[in-house]
This record gives sequence, C-alpha cells and structure tokens, in this order.
Amino acid sequence: MHGIPDISPGDDLAALLVAGCAESGIRLQRWDVVVVTQKVVSKAEGALVDLAAIEPSSRARELAAIVGYDPRVVEVVMRESIEVLRAEPGVLLCVTRHGHVTANAGVDHSNVGGVELVSVLPDDPDASAGHLRSELLPLVDGGPLAVIVCDSFGRPFRVGTVNVAVGVAGMPAISDYQGARDTYDQPLQTTVLASADEVAAAADLVMGKVERVPVAVLRGLRWEGEETGVAPLLRPKSKDIFRRTG
Amino acid sequence: MHGIPDISPGDDLAALLVAGCAESGIRLQRWDVVVVTQKVVSKAEGALVDLAAIEPSSRARELAAIVGYDPRVVEVVMRESIEVLRAEPGVLLCVTRHGHVTANAGVDHSNVGGVELVSVLPDDPDASAGHLRSELLPLVDGGPLAVIVCDSFGRPFRVGTVNVAVGVAGMPAISDYQGARDTYDQPLQTTVLASADEVAAAADLVMGKVERVPVAVLRGLRWEGEETGVAPLLRPKSKDIFRRTG
Repeated sequence: MHGIPDISPGDDLAALLVAGCAESGIRLQRWDVVVVTQKVVSKAEGALVDLAAIEPSSRARELAAIVGYDPRVVEVVMRESIEVLRAEPGVLLCVTRHGHVTANAGVDHSNVGGVELVSVLPDDPDASAGHLRSELLPLVDGGPLAVIVCDSFGRPFRVGTVNVAVGVAGMPAISDYQGARDTYDQPLQTTVLASADEVAAAADLVMGKVERVPVAVLRGLRWEGEETGVAPLLRPKSKDIFRRTG
Repeated sequence: MHGIPDISPGDDLAALLVAGCAESGIRLQRWDVVVVTQKVVSKAEGALVDLAAIEPSSRARELAAIVGYDPRVVEVVMRESIEVLRAEPGVLLCVTRHGHVTANAGVDHSNVGGVELVSVLPDDPDASAGHLRSELLPLVDGGPLAVIVCDSFGRPFRVGTVNVAVGVAGMPAISDYQGARDTYDQPLQTTVLASADEVAAAADLVMGKVERVPVAVLRGLRWEGEETGVAPLLRPKSKDIFRRTG
C-alpha cells in the first residue's frame, strides 16, 4: 500500500492506514490481513530513543568493544533484552523482553530519521496490532480481520532476512495440524505451521526496503481457532536446542 | 493450484503442471513464480527410498537409539547428510549434501504413500527447478519466469515450520540492497532479503498440508540481477555463529 506518510510520535496510525487505503484504491474486506511494519508502529507510539540521552553502562561498553557498535546503541539493546545470546564482531543476538530472538533486540537505525535516533520494538506488539485492528474493524462490518505487526529477522543457517510477525491480532499465529492425516491417511510429520510468520514474509515481497511501503494487505486467507497473539510462535528456552546448548 | 494428480516416479511433472494450470483456470504470465513442493518433484524424479532395502549402519543404530527413530530412516538421513548438527530425543538436525540445514535432512514420510517408503530431497533442486522452468517458458513467451522448489523447515528460536526455497531457477534467490539508502538517506542496516524464501513462505499459505495443493503461482513480483540458484541463501559454516560454536 502506498500513500502512508512519514509517521511521527503521536500520529493516529489507524487513521493514516484508512487514508492510505483510500489513496491506494484498497477497500478492506472481511478476512483481510493488514500487515504493518514494526517501524511505523514504533514511530507512531513514540518507541524511539535519543542516543544523546543515553549513558552506557560498563557492561554495554564491554559488549560494544566486542561487537564494534556505538556503546549507547548497545545500552539501548540491553535495556530491550532479557538475555544476550551471542556477542561477537558485528553480531549482537538477543532475546527481547517480549521473547523474540533477534539481532540487536530489534533496535534499529534505518528509516527512523536523524542519526542520533533509534527505534525499539513496540512495548506490546500484540496490543499494538489489537488496537489497529479495533480501529479498522468498522470498515469490514466487524470482521473477520487480522492485523500483524512485522519485523525483519535474520536466521541461523540461512542468509538474508525474512519478515516475521512480532505482534498478531485477529487470527491464530500458528496453524496446528496435530492429529491430522495426509492424503494417504498417514499421520502428518509436520504439524505446526507458522502461519503469521508466513503472512509477514509474503507481505515483505511488496514492502521492499527502500521504497516507503510500510503496510500491505493480504487477501484470500482463511483461519480458524483461537487468537492468542504472537506467543505460540515463541519457542520457550527449555524447548530450544540452540539456547539450551548455546 | 488444484488439479495436480498423485505423482509417481517417471511422471512428466512439467506436463502435469501445464494440465493443472488449465484445470485450475490459471494462465501463466510473464513474471510469474511457480512454486512446487519438494515432495512432488522428488516423487516425479523417483527420489524415494524403500526402507525394506535399507541396512542401517552401527552409527545409524546408535543415533536412532538416541533420537527414537527407525534405524533405517536414520540410515537414509545419514546418506543424505554431510553433517549431523544435533541428535537428541525427537531431534535429528542435519546439513544436507546440498548445504541446507534441516530436520532429518529433508527425509520425509508424509504424503509419500506406503509406510515403508520415504522421500528424500531432489538430487539437484536447482536443476529440478531449471528443468521445470524450461518446460514452462514457452507458455510465457520466453519469460521472465521463475520456478522455486520448496520444503517446510523448522527454525531455531521460533515455533512452527515455514516454507523455504530448496531450489531456484529464473530469479535471484536474494535481493541485495547493499549500498542502498533508506528514505532518510541513511545507509540501510538490513541489506540482504531472502526473497526466494519469502516467496516460498507466501506460497505455503495456499498450499496447506492436508489438501493436495503442491503447486502455487505467485504473481506480481519483479526482480533483477543474476540468477545463481539457491546458493546465496545457504550460510557457509564459517559464517554461521550457530555452527561454529554449536
């Protein structure tokens, strides 16, 4: 979707989304999934940090020396994190306070404006998605309608980032086929699909990184089952072979 | 796309795709990306193993006891692997001979038919994609047209599988924004997007796991740059913090 202006703290993102839909000739429909980048949500919510006001701790300075980052950025990353998984030159992999495992805990310079300003993930991305959803619901006669707040995450083993869901409202984050059988009536081996992550990935194909397309609408999906935010996508440490042994 | 019949070794998958397009009312267009599950490609190519003919090695028996699998399945997994990264109850994470890191090296029971038969990844998934592409090109006046062979992979840190590309032809597997600047003219932090993986993920949304939808067509994408198969998506061990330390 084009037509979304530059977002500033306090902006009514839902109203700007509605205007953007109109400008893009998109008429929201029932069963649409509206995917919004974390960046514009964070900006609208004022989830921005002025590095000039940050005094890095000694631990942040230590990590910054290892990683090669601005110590103030590392300080912000640490405030956003409950655990640092890896720190080495160019890599600072953290578990955010929400439970996402991502580089720099989602702290980001790009597309924020002003080199001294960084964005952090929304305080409660599920709530952010839920708020946007409730504002958009009247446009689709009360739904079904889903909203996903997304961010670009890197991945172990594979090169390149993919968009994933960091906040979900209005649809289940996963599709659970446990107990289902394949077309030969054999039990399925793969039972849990990361649907919301796949929706986020699909949205990224029209979002790009250079053009200003922070919102995408995915149409044609159907879902059933309970809506429980992004939590079903987050692997608890006790069940993560890479965090237990790492 | 519906209308793809059950595939058997030796079937002309390209011809069946063309027929499936016709039956589904899909007319392929230039710039389409045809996404095909590894499973039907493997079946058409006869990349199937009869477990009755497998004699597990002592190492396979050892691993099977740890993991809790049929030792013959573990033997097939080992033959498909260049490295076993993790073996513990219910988990056998391997690097396939193609360089993909995935559970059971892509060896799979489901949707193969016959409990004694497992499928393995195609011998050369890029070549499989390239072959299908060359057969489909005449339908779109010589292209551009891309074909992606996909499979469901689990992920560290996050619950649920996502579809990823295991073979790519006709488009670059990644979008490299290195040197690009954001809308505020700042250098982008995220420079490499895993485009082919995001296309595969998007396709999974219409493929499902229970219904027989092994092919999807993604329309509207544009790409530029060199086509080099799936290799750009594979992180070399030397640059993978989880394999160096794991």
